[in-house]
Amino acid sequence: MVNYFSSDFKLGILGGGQLGKMMLYETRKYDIQTLVLDPSSEAPCKISCNHFQQGDLRDYDTVLNFGRQADVVTFEIEGVNVDALKQLESEGIKTYPSAATLEKIQNKATQKKFYLSKEIPTADFEVLDSITDLKNAVSSGKVSIPFVWKSATGGYDGKGVSVIKITDALDELPDGECIAEKLVPFKNELAVIVARNPSGEIKTYPVVEMEFHPTANQVEYVICPARIDDSVAEKARKTAEKVSEAFDHVGLLAVEMFQTKDDEILVNEVAPRPHNSGHYSIEASYTNQFEQHIRAILDLPLGNTNSKVGGIMVNLVGDKEHEGEVVYENIAEIMKLDGVTPHIYGKKITRPFRKMGHVTIVNEDISEARKTAEKVKNSIKVISKR
Amino acid sequence: MVNYFSSDFKLGILGGGQLGKMMLYETRKYDIQTLVLDPSSEAPCKISCNHFQQGDLRDYDTVLNFGRQADVVTFEIEGVNVDALKQLESEGIKTYPSAATLEKIQNKATQKKFYLSKEIPTADFEVLDSITDLKNAVSSGKVSIPFVWKSATGGYDGKGVSVIKITDALDELPDGECIAEKLVPFKNELAVIVARNPSGEIKTYPVVEMEFHPTANQVEYVICPARIDDSVAEKARKTAEKVSEAFDHVGLLAVEMFQTKDDEILVNEVAPRPHNSGHYSIEASYTNQFEQHIRAILDLPLGNTNSKVGGIMVNLVGDKEHEGEVVYENIAEIMKLDGVTPHIYGKKITRPFRKMGHVTIVNEDISEARKTAEKVKNSIKVISKR
Repeated sequence: MVNYFSSDFKLGILGGGQLGKMMLYETRKYDIQTLVLDPSSEAPCKISCNHFQQGDLRDYDTVLNFGRQADVVTFEIEGVNVDALKQLESEGIKTYPSAATLEKIQNKATQKKFYLSKEIPTADFEVLDSITDLKNAVSSGKVSIPFVWKSATGGYDGKGVSVIKITDALDELPDGECIAEKLVPFKNELAVIVARNPSGEIKTYPVVEMEFHPTANQVEYVICPARIDDSVAEKARKTAEKVSEAFDHVGLLAVEMFQTKDDEILVNEVAPRPHNSGHYSIEASYTNQFEQHIRAILDLPLGNTNSKVGGIMVNLVGDKEHEGEVVYENIAEIMKLDGVTPHIYGKKITRPFRKMGHVTIVNEDISEARKTAEKVKNSIKVISKR
Repeated sequence: MVNYFSSDFKLGILGGGQLGKMMLYETRKYDIQTLVLDPSSEAPCKISCNHFQQGDLRDYDTVLNFGRQADVVTFEIEGVNVDALKQLESEGIKTYPSAATLEKIQNKATQKKFYLSKEIPTADFEVLDSITDLKNAVSSGKVSIPFVWKSATGGYDGKGVSVIKITDALDELPDGECIAEKLVPFKNELAVIVARNPSGEIKTYPVVEMEFHPTANQVEYVICPARIDDSVAEKARKTAEKVSEAFDHVGLLAVEMFQTKDDEILVNEVAPRPHNSGHYSIEASYTNQFEQHIRAILDLPLGNTNSKVGGIMVNLVGDKEHEGEVVYENIAEIMKLDGVTPHIYGKKITRPFRKMGHVTIVNEDISEARKTAEKVKNSIKVISKR
């Protein structure tokens, strides 16, 4: 086995945001050397990596030359130059998750077609090359309103996704390749994180249940374990495992799913990295998602994915009335509550609905945790200095 | 309340070793700016603090000028210049734990006299100014062999402590102020970590049980909860609380105690900082000791000190046959075991019995954890490259 610990081994991380920052707690714990590339000189990862480089994650040469300094390359954000990753792989530099996987995931149309080809259950959809094509499909009845419009590329945190209820709404959409997805009435939005290493060892985390902010379309509460039947949970975990194996995935894969009215599981979309829906694991799980990702991509044995206690995660997003230098109002109040841990990402400027941090609430009794989570949600505010 | 989170507030940490490194995971989590002072350019804290300064912790001007850049100053090692801390306090810079507390603790003779004055139970002792005085005390029968010799200053990890069983052994001892402590037959060595903030809020962690390496006199296993009667545990926690209040302590205080044959609790010594006996808390407790120390010195509400699961900590010390560039043999093997987390401190060079890291084993059933801990102990080796 490669000697990773206190050695000359170098892990390259593309992206220096909060996911990378939390990953670095684990590389520090293992004393693994890290290189981080991020466009911002204010990136949360700037300190606590061994070497920080400012640069464009979309630029072929920047990513290639960065990756060549590392023994293994991973990423904490999907928006990176895939061709550079392919070149690195051809040069024998391990890239986990793989360029092939990332390429499929970067384009939602490609991702959906992949599910079809692998017989992975997902909502019916049509792929359209432009808004003009979409309008024609609607007028011809090939696509029927209401439906979910998703931009094929560039969508995140609810951007690039819209529920179309009236024809006029089509005029509001940006042009470009997109998918029109059947609007599925569902009971729950669920997620399962799957870890898989190059040796093929695979483990799934318990199913989490997601509650979204009504307007911002961002996750408001993530609850683990999900309050669903064991049979549904088992089906969700098996489906997520199937997706990971279909991609021949290495690293973490967060699989977001719908539980339909008749308890079918439909795959919505995936993220090939540590994910917001796994933040609860830092306090609640035997092995948190960031340590698990490191174990997976370094082909180390995967850790126990069970929970020690019930966990709920609350996103700390910027108040919609505030923009400017951030202040976390009432943070000391929530720290008085049992089992409450705030995570502050380190972004200096708050903006409406910007992800500034998260709070984890753990308790042996998940319903107790849920009560505390509501208190947290109602007291802390992410505002700007007056 | 001071706005600590993503603000201009600066915490100064004296000492950049593994305790500081683990403290930095928490300051990063809260996005609190940190300054670290350490004599070594290879200090584990060198990265992941906001500003690292290389310098002598014993030098008055170095510590004073370093501290003047911070809003609050703390330390992760006792061997720092106390006069500089006093000066910082007089200049209105908060120093937690206080200079007065540290001064009492730095000298074991002063520390023992303090316990007497506060009616805190501790083993009988004599203070001697020199080895000559000690020899006279022995020949006059004032001190009777066997007894425990402790150097008043400079002892750590078993150095500066020796059990004297024969008169000739006195000739082996280094000269200087020392104490001769009555050799107390005890059932267990216990420790309790107490957290106290400036507002006077105080919380104790569960009692841990310590098992020492037979020859190196370093902790081999730390077991939480200790396998002792509740009445003894309660007495130990109350005693530890009394010690913290006696010092009017702010921050963490690790109180090491003996459980005598007749279940009396005697205070052995204390450490005014996060402690080896609290490392289990990172994986096992609702609030780990490093986060708790930060909460305490910043006068934030203290977190829940209960455990989620049973925890055992195994120190990773350098093999006695090896010196040189470190290799962690069989580390992947122990990572296969459930609930096992290695912590690698990041020291490049291993030496016999040098503390290089630790491994935490957690399990709902402490006896299961104990079995796993033995497997860990028997497989992993800290050796040097051939």
